[in-house]
Amino acid sequence: MIDELRQERPLVVCITNDVVKPFTANGLLALGASPIMSGESDEAADILKHAGALLLNIGTCTKEKLPLYEEMARCANNYNIPVVLDPVGYGASAFRKNFTDKLLGNYDIALVKGNAGEIHALSGQKTLSKGVDNVTEGNTVEIAKTAYDVLKVPVLVTGETDAYADGNLTKTMHNGHEYLEVITGSGCVLGAVTASFLALENQPESIEYAVSLYNIAAEKAAQYAEGPGTFSVKLIDEIYNFKTDDYKTKKVKVHE
Amino acid sequence: MIDELRQERPLVVCITNDVVKPFTANGLLALGASPIMSGESDEAADILKHAGALLLNIGTCTKEKLPLYEEMARCANNYNIPVVLDPVGYGASAFRKNFTDKLLGNYDIALVKGNAGEIHALSGQKTLSKGVDNVTEGNTVEIAKTAYDVLKVPVLVTGETDAYADGNLTKTMHNGHEYLEVITGSGCVLGAVTASFLALENQPESIEYAVSLYNIAAEKAAQYAEGPGTFSVKLIDEIYNFKTDDYKTKKVKVHE
Amino acid sequence: MIDELRQERPLVVCITNDVVKPFTANGLLALGASPIMSGESDEAADILKHAGALLLNIGTCTKEKLPLYEEMARCANNYNIPVVLDPVGYGASAFRKNFTDKLLGNYDIALVKGNAGEIHALSGQKTLSKGVDNVTEGNTVEIAKTAYDVLKVPVLVTGETDAYADGNLTKTMHNGHEYLEVITGSGCVLGAVTASFLALENQPESIEYAVSLYNIAAEKAAQYAEGPGTFSVKLIDEIYNFKTDDYKTKKVKVHE
Repeated sequence: MIDELRQERPLVVCITNDVVKPFTANGLLALGASPIMSGESDEAADILKHAGALLLNIGTCTKEKLPLYEEMARCANNYNIPVVLDPVGYGASAFRKNFTDKLLGNYDIALVKGNAGEIHALSGQKTLSKGVDNVTEGNTVEIAKTAYDVLKVPVLVTGETDAYADGNLTKTMHNGHEYLEVITGSGCVLGAVTASFLALENQPESIEYAVSLYNIAAEKAAQYAEGPGTFSVKLIDEIYNFKTDDYKTKKVKVHE
Repeated sequence: MIDELRQERPLVVCITNDVVKPFTANGLLALGASPIMSGESDEAADILKHAGALLLNIGTCTKEKLPLYEEMARCANNYNIPVVLDPVGYGASAFRKNFTDKLLGNYDIALVKGNAGEIHALSGQKTLSKGVDNVTEGNTVEIAKTAYDVLKVPVLVTGETDAYADGNLTKTMHNGHEYLEVITGSGCVLGAVTASFLALENQPESIEYAVSLYNIAAEKAAQYAEGPGTFSVKLIDEIYNFKTDDYKTKKVKVHE
Repeated sequence: MIDELRQERPLVVCITNDVVKPFTANGLLALGASPIMSGESDEAADILKHAGALLLNIGTCTKEKLPLYEEMARCANNYNIPVVLDPVGYGASAFRKNFTDKLLGNYDIALVKGNAGEIHALSGQKTLSKGVDNVTEGNTVEIAKTAYDVLKVPVLVTGETDAYADGNLTKTMHNGHEYLEVITGSGCVLGAVTASFLALENQPESIEYAVSLYNIAAEKAAQYAEGPGTFSVKLIDEIYNFKTDDYKTKKVKVHE
């Protein structure tokens, strides 16, 4: 699937937070996708016209940006392009909750992804998180399934174990490295990588592939890392150098 | 103190400039703190409720952002959370001067930190700086003491020698490496690191610890660096790998 | 010329996009220039007063930012400071086209730089690009010459071969490395580097020097890189470590 992505070079519109823009753009370029970022709703239709997917990441959002997110979502829906929604810090403020709920309520979302605390809160559960970090691992499978039941949108819960649920299918993905928790934007970049594969084909296999590729690249990067600084640099290298053969080390369980 | 920080993982709200957001977030995660960034005043109360400290860094500020900074400061004061103010480029424009003066005048600030040019200007001295770089080292001790006398707020002046003054106490801290001057945001990240230790306890020792830890990590990073690019990556590694024992190489002088 | 730049440390005002701010600031600091970034038109006159050049990069622009770009351009023109314009993603939306056209139509621009797709579109040709990536190499010399004929502004087209045209002179520059295409902001940083040398002297030789230095640094960085992650880190190192002697490996052709 990585060869197909590098061939097709899907344009992925990333409306994402201020903290992770460089890392996200570099992650997608290393992968072989073509990222574009924008802050202007007036260009939503133009840039989404050629796009394969849209990422909406709500970290560092403001109320002034809600029309941007809505117009991007509206155009993506019009063009029938998959939308990945990453509700960063959902449990951290009423503002982020309302912002996310509007997007979830009014637009077709192909995938909601977040850490356990965010998705737990998104299901209407009392959040256990403070801030944007993941403070509860919990049972990611249960959190994913519950969130799907509430939202009726495919859900990816990231953590030491990543869990996917869409009503028909529940899967866990077991690759990765703990350094991912110590760098900013590792989850945000995964959201963008997932959007890139959904641009090829909007199906659960794309998500499994994206998550496993990213986590395998992380495992390889960690071998050469001496801390989270070198790790994040090597992670970009390993995404770039990822070969189809590397995918053989994926660890995925189908649950039902 | 680093072990205590890693245990407690204080949430540090960073309202900082556009240039240093990724580096700041990665620095705090490497340290063991939990950073959150925001651009929305409506979530100030929610995110500061669980926070241990607030960093206000005025680089790339706009007049539209003043209400954000004010609301964050107001909530932090309400919750009795220490506020670190970094007046980036204070001497560079009347706009930055007015912006900073409003924050200093209306809110309780636990620490003002800046380079010699910024703090010099902040004391009402004619600035010697152009832009945001430090063009005068000067006598950082005198600059810190003068600024305290004028502002009646604890002051940290960064440079080859870092100086702290709060009326009762004047200290200089002598670790560090010249590469810190060649990477963007090294002072901004230090501000965030300092806020993280003030979150543990709002006392001068927290500032001394933060500055020395950061500068010792820089010394270690410089050993493996081949330029400022590799240096800034290794700096994150060395913050992450910092051990209590490393603190033995601190060089601090108490002046009165 | 690099020694002169490190001596003079020109202040370069960078009004640039959200994705490349850290990389741009680090690139200029490594070079020996003094970058300042701003989002506030009220400080344009103050910060440009001491500046040597202005970079305007329109990536991630919004209509709210047009007055900022216009005021920065106006002040730079008043102070007779060279302005480098980088119309990122010009072909990608009508919004970016209009934004750029206003700047080009109303202010004196010392240099327009962009990739082949952007400059091609800027000449009124039907664009071949999607997004902000360069999807057509084309004949960069022809694209540069045509753009100059249409715009009457000196033009730099970047790509595997970089081409410069200003009516009197057409040159191609042949250093560089393909990794530059796989990291975000490599063209944006080149724009800032070029502005730094134009700050020393506003002449075609400054552009040739900037492009060749940057591309030679890229060639050296690529020797130690294991992918685009390590490449971009080493690129900063190699800009910092650039010696006058390294310039001997430049490959430049004058065309007429």
